[in-house]
Amino acid sequence: MSEKTLTKQDIEDLAVGAAILGTGGGGDPYIGKLMAIQALERGRKIIVMDPEEVPDDAFVVPVAAMGTPTVLIEKIPSGKEALYALKLLEQYFNRESEYITPIEAGGINSTIPLTVAAIKGKPVLDGDGMGRAFPELQMVTFHLYGVKATPMSMADEKGNAVILDAIDNYWAEKIARVVTMRFGGTAWIAIYAMSGKKYKEAAVKGTVTLAIEIGRTLREAKLHGINALDALLDMTKGYLLFTGKIIDVNRQNIGGFARGEAVIEGLEDFKGSKLIIKFQNENLVAVKNGKIIASVPDLITVLDKETGKPITTERLRYGLRVNVIGIPCDPKWRTSKGLKVVGPKYFGYYIEYKPIEKSVKEA
Amino acid sequence: MSEKTLTKQDIEDLAVGAAILGTGGGGDPYIGKLMAIQALERGRKIIVMDPEEVPDDAFVVPVAAMGTPTVLIEKIPSGKEALYALKLLEQYFNRESEYITPIEAGGINSTIPLTVAAIKGKPVLDGDGMGRAFPELQMVTFHLYGVKATPMSMADEKGNAVILDAIDNYWAEKIARVVTMRFGGTAWIAIYAMSGKKYKEAAVKGTVTLAIEIGRTLREAKLHGINALDALLDMTKGYLLFTGKIIDVNRQNIGGFARGEAVIEGLEDFKGSKLIIKFQNENLVAVKNGKIIASVPDLITVLDKETGKPITTERLRYGLRVNVIGIPCDPKWRTSKGLKVVGPKYFGYYIEYKPIEKSVKEA
Repeated sequence: MSEKTLTKQDIEDLAVGAAILGTGGGGDPYIGKLMAIQALERGRKIIVMDPEEVPDDAFVVPVAAMGTPTVLIEKIPSGKEALYALKLLEQYFNRESEYITPIEAGGINSTIPLTVAAIKGKPVLDGDGMGRAFPELQMVTFHLYGVKATPMSMADEKGNAVILDAIDNYWAEKIARVVTMRFGGTAWIAIYAMSGKKYKEAAVKGTVTLAIEIGRTLREAKLHGINALDALLDMTKGYLLFTGKIIDVNRQNIGGFARGEAVIEGLEDFKGSKLIIKFQNENLVAVKNGKIIASVPDLITVLDKETGKPITTERLRYGLRVNVIGIPCDPKWRTSKGLKVVGPKYFGYYIEYKPIEKSVKEA
Repeated sequence: MSEKTLTKQDIEDLAVGAAILGTGGGGDPYIGKLMAIQALERGRKIIVMDPEEVPDDAFVVPVAAMGTPTVLIEKIPSGKEALYALKLLEQYFNRESEYITPIEAGGINSTIPLTVAAIKGKPVLDGDGMGRAFPELQMVTFHLYGVKATPMSMADEKGNAVILDAIDNYWAEKIARVVTMRFGGTAWIAIYAMSGKKYKEAAVKGTVTLAIEIGRTLREAKLHGINALDALLDMTKGYLLFTGKIIDVNRQNIGGFARGEAVIEGLEDFKGSKLIIKFQNENLVAVKNGKIIASVPDLITVLDKETGKPITTERLRYGLRVNVIGIPCDPKWRTSKGLKVVGPKYFGYYIEYKPIEKSVKEA
């Protein structure tokens, strides 16, 4: 493909697929989906373009929502916020963005760039900066390849706006986080502005179409009576880590993040076992009977056992029957540089990272 | 006067006088004084100009330090931080500042604009936005006259920078405060950019030369063996509220402010009485034997009984012998609009404001 014009069905599929890649984070997929579909209904076009087609000197800007997803489902955005953030950054650079891209795969952060791009009449690039979702700003492959997060712009739904220029990407995260909290929990940001050349080098590519494919596969499996979970695991090279019932969820907004854990009691093949998932916006580690069996940067996703749909961390609740799956992350994250930024140690789990393929084989 | 070129002696006097007007806040006067004197020693000129001489269409920019003064005495600034903040705002407006002004009277915030103006080769205006010091950004007469605090710029000593555009001046305060805390406790800001016309209407005028006069008066009184306290009270139309020894200081950095109280045990005429001063960066209320005898927006200043020098809130400590004086505030603050912004109720003291002239007469 060189470019693809999305249909409503594509967006429905994308919302499901992106939430699976989003490992519990990236914001609620439902809200983002509605915004993108509304753009189509108003006659806008959403065009997804292969990054390889982008000229080296093009101006590529990722747009996203930042903050606790818990707040986002209470404060429904209008879509103008992200557009305003983009405009602020364009003004600062005195240059129009030519391509918009998601910064991560996950609920609203997969679809908000589509909406913004549609309204601006620009293409969205088929890729992102994570190939999944992560909670902090420096946790993007762009960072690994030396792109500066700042100058970045931030806007809230009231009209407050900030342009931030930080000395490094960790400081960008620290300062932007307190602003986001003060904004009321959510900020709309334009960040990591970069050249087409840098994007082609640094992005995790193909993730928008991958998310659509995942969504489509699950939908069609259901139509044709095929086991949707098997189809999903086939497609993502993933593993079923656990099946069970959520018996406890502990969640707090601390330091601008939704932090907590879900406790799952085993069912079927997993009867007698217990799985704890710890999260910070996204699922970070899965602990089975006291042993970490999967960890960042690999993907840990919770699926509703009945519907097969992904459950974001803010929707985890007592009584849900779930399948927990693990999916290998993009190889960029498995380098020593990548693991320093998003490995288990960064999040306070003092274990050596073990690729999920290996840890599943051992278990 | 239309303009006055300051000498080292003027700056020494200004540091003392401004700290008296600063009611315990505005940052340590010693550090700011050294920076201004250093500018003179490097051959720069500090020119203070009568606001009435400023053209209506001139571009006037206040520069200041924001944060907890407690932190400022640990993190000595280089002077470049405030200059950088000003440059950022000038770039944002795409216009060079023509006049610099203090935003408040008080330690470092009286002298930092002198240093910045000297380095830039611009005049400083003889006035400020308070005629004293207050802890929050919206607490300026500029705010009363409809000037917007934002766009404002913020810089820290590491090189982090923010441009903030808030929906109102209260939001500017809220957002800038968390950024300041994240910066490490101090931010250097350029804020309330305005026209010469607006400045002439909104500023408290003559406060730079008043501060120099106060300092000079105290210095000369000492030289001539005149009672310095009497001379000070004469000059400022002030009152001696209390004489005593500090027996307790309780101070905490909460929400980006140095908040607390000092307890003073009466000496001499005040033997048997107790005065409590409550502060938030600046002294807010003086409570004598359980009754508020002076409150914001009137000035409450603590002077070292031996040296006659003002003591900022971060330097209050057990055992100091002090005189506490009260000075009437600028009439702009005594309007109902002014009292809404800086009256005792805003700070959580649910009393009706009583001008100090009246409350002293009653006591």
